[in-house]
Amino acid sequence: MNLKIAVLAGDGIGPEVILQAKKALYAIGLVFDHEFVFEDAFVGAIAIEKTGNPLPEQTLNLCLNTDAVLFGAIGDPKYDNNPDAKVRPEQGLLKLRKSLGLFANIRPIKPYSSLLNSSPLKKEIIEGVDFILFRELTGGVYFGEKKLNESGTIASDLCEYSEEEITRITHLAFKSAQNRRKKVTMVDKANVLETSRLWRRVVKKVSQDYPDVALDFLFVDNAAMQIILNPRQFDVILTENLFGDILSDEASVITGSIGLLASASLGKTNALFEPIHGSYPQATGKNIANPIASVLSAAMLLEHFGLHKEAKKVYEAVEKAIEYNVVTVDLNTDSKFGTNEVGDFIANFI
Amino acid sequence: MNLKIAVLAGDGIGPEVILQAKKALYAIGLVFDHEFVFEDAFVGAIAIEKTGNPLPEQTLNLCLNTDAVLFGAIGDPKYDNNPDAKVRPEQGLLKLRKSLGLFANIRPIKPYSSLLNSSPLKKEIIEGVDFILFRELTGGVYFGEKKLNESGTIASDLCEYSEEEITRITHLAFKSAQNRRKKVTMVDKANVLETSRLWRRVVKKVSQDYPDVALDFLFVDNAAMQIILNPRQFDVILTENLFGDILSDEASVITGSIGLLASASLGKTNALFEPIHGSYPQATGKNIANPIASVLSAAMLLEHFGLHKEAKKVYEAVEKAIEYNVVTVDLNTDSKFGTNEVGDFIANFI
Ligand SMILES: CC(C)[C@H](C(=O)O)[C@@H](O)C(=O)O
Ligand SMILES: CC(C)[C@H](C(=O)O)[C@@H](O)C(=O)O
Repeated sequence: MNLKIAVLAGDGIGPEVILQAKKALYAIGLVFDHEFVFEDAFVGAIAIEKTGNPLPEQTLNLCLNTDAVLFGAIGDPKYDNNPDAKVRPEQGLLKLRKSLGLFANIRPIKPYSSLLNSSPLKKEIIEGVDFILFRELTGGVYFGEKKLNESGTIASDLCEYSEEEITRITHLAFKSAQNRRKKVTMVDKANVLETSRLWRRVVKKVSQDYPDVALDFLFVDNAAMQIILNPRQFDVILTENLFGDILSDEASVITGSIGLLASASLGKTNALFEPIHGSYPQATGKNIANPIASVLSAAMLLEHFGLHKEAKKVYEAVEKAIEYNVVTVDLNTDSKFGTNEVGDFIANFI
Repeated sequence: MNLKIAVLAGDGIGPEVILQAKKALYAIGLVFDHEFVFEDAFVGAIAIEKTGNPLPEQTLNLCLNTDAVLFGAIGDPKYDNNPDAKVRPEQGLLKLRKSLGLFANIRPIKPYSSLLNSSPLKKEIIEGVDFILFRELTGGVYFGEKKLNESGTIASDLCEYSEEEITRITHLAFKSAQNRRKKVTMVDKANVLETSRLWRRVVKKVSQDYPDVALDFLFVDNAAMQIILNPRQFDVILTENLFGDILSDEASVITGSIGLLASASLGKTNALFEPIHGSYPQATGKNIANPIASVLSAAMLLEHFGLHKEAKKVYEAVEKAIEYNVVTVDLNTDSKFGTNEVGDFIANFI
């Protein structure tokens, strides 16, 4: 297979970890005889520095004209601590999601058996956990109108959803459940929010096309508890943008490290793959960031293009790295391995 | 002291658990020679059944003219599963909060040492945890304009905040921190939301009045992780309405049971005390609901009126109940004690 992949490494540890994902893909290409062509482009704070724009036109055009995007991380404390900044790195990511129509963000949560002890949760709670979170990614309060009055004393954000936006991701979630344990849990705040009530109505309607899949509902406050109290109850979680942001990061604690979690963002014609962690500025350049989430993003990319054998090989390599304790300090405080060494081990294994 | 207390037991297990709180207050009254006069009123689903209104005028008037409100729980699955219901129990609670101006909801999180093993989190994670969450309670998306277009295909909720709303709760949070470990963590999503950026600006400004208190910021997705990964880092958490709803329920897992957590909701002139759990309809009438959260709400009420010795007595009684294992099934699966027995033990101890 021939794939053109846009590589947007972004800020902070982004470039270091994405480099390891590229190494893994390169190794896969050699072994399985595929040609992956990488094209790098700027996004986020680094793009602001270089061009004044967190998503330069050139980057967007590249992404629109490639088979897939491999994304690192964006963000810089310089902007976070300045509420008055007009241009922010995150705008680059949000605009990219919107422009590529990436409406579904998919995050699998499944702890590695050799890491069951590195979670803050007890082993008996997380053993056997295996669920996928479907987060709506191009709607809700992220993209609604934002206002600030002239005197700067009143601000607002609008959360808006349409039936169509809800329908398309709901179908993806139910299809995924059909290939799994056949259960969808919709998370919302329908006792308070009008948008949540629309979600409930639409999801109920769509669910009728999938009579073999069970559907239940949880309020988001309760869901935030249940993910910790009894995460085994979940198969597919379906939720809106902001709730998905919060719950997926929360759920990452189950696996022991956010450095292990990858995500796929899918649209009708485009696809983007990224680790769920952020740019982790404190770790930048120190060769300590965990590259596994990025490598697993590459594996999700392979799966997306039907390269299942290839993806399996990457998963195997990651499992071996973990089994042999070739991991970064987040997983083993005594580790002498850095980002590069873990990446090399994985590429060599492949 | 002479206190007139409005008792709004509400739905589900509300009446059962609130009865135990009344018993405890009654005992305190006897021992310390105070007169507590209770007046009952309807709220929530039961109020809709009786009057068509989740917050009947009579109930509201009573609350406006008492020293404090003791609140049980509201909610009924009948309404949750019907996105088209025009009247909902939750509206009663929200309207009550707004009408009484209860802008600050305060939830202490501190595990009992004898219960360190009943949390899904490892003992070494939760040992020594002691923080308070300040949740803004009368603003944000809970109270912003809600819209549904005529064809029922587009819905929206507006999240709005003013400088004034942010300022008043921020002062409370910083004052509380001054009496504690002198650290406030503001939780928001300032990399995306305009309201969060207003929060950051205002909180920074107010913080200048409290030079002895350290201030830091966390994005809500990261906060949802940190509460599980390293809850000891927190002293006072300050956040807006919806984030506070999610994070405080999440934080309840630290203590092993949501049945142990009480909250105070304060305004300029009014105060309401309630367990943080919901109406738990499956348990209604079975004498299995944990009354401790309600009893602790009563203790917070006593503290609010400066009755510290009295509150301490209630805390002691609860600790004894836990120590002697006179607890409900949520804390001890083999327990033969029910809601009533736990309540009686506490009242007798007092
Ligand atoms: C960086 C930020 C805008 C982003 C989000 O909130 O969507 C991130 O937290 C994520 O989850 O991908
Ligand atoms: C019942 C519901 C409206 C309420 C809320 O979300 O505020 C509850 O979850 C709470 O936290 O008190």
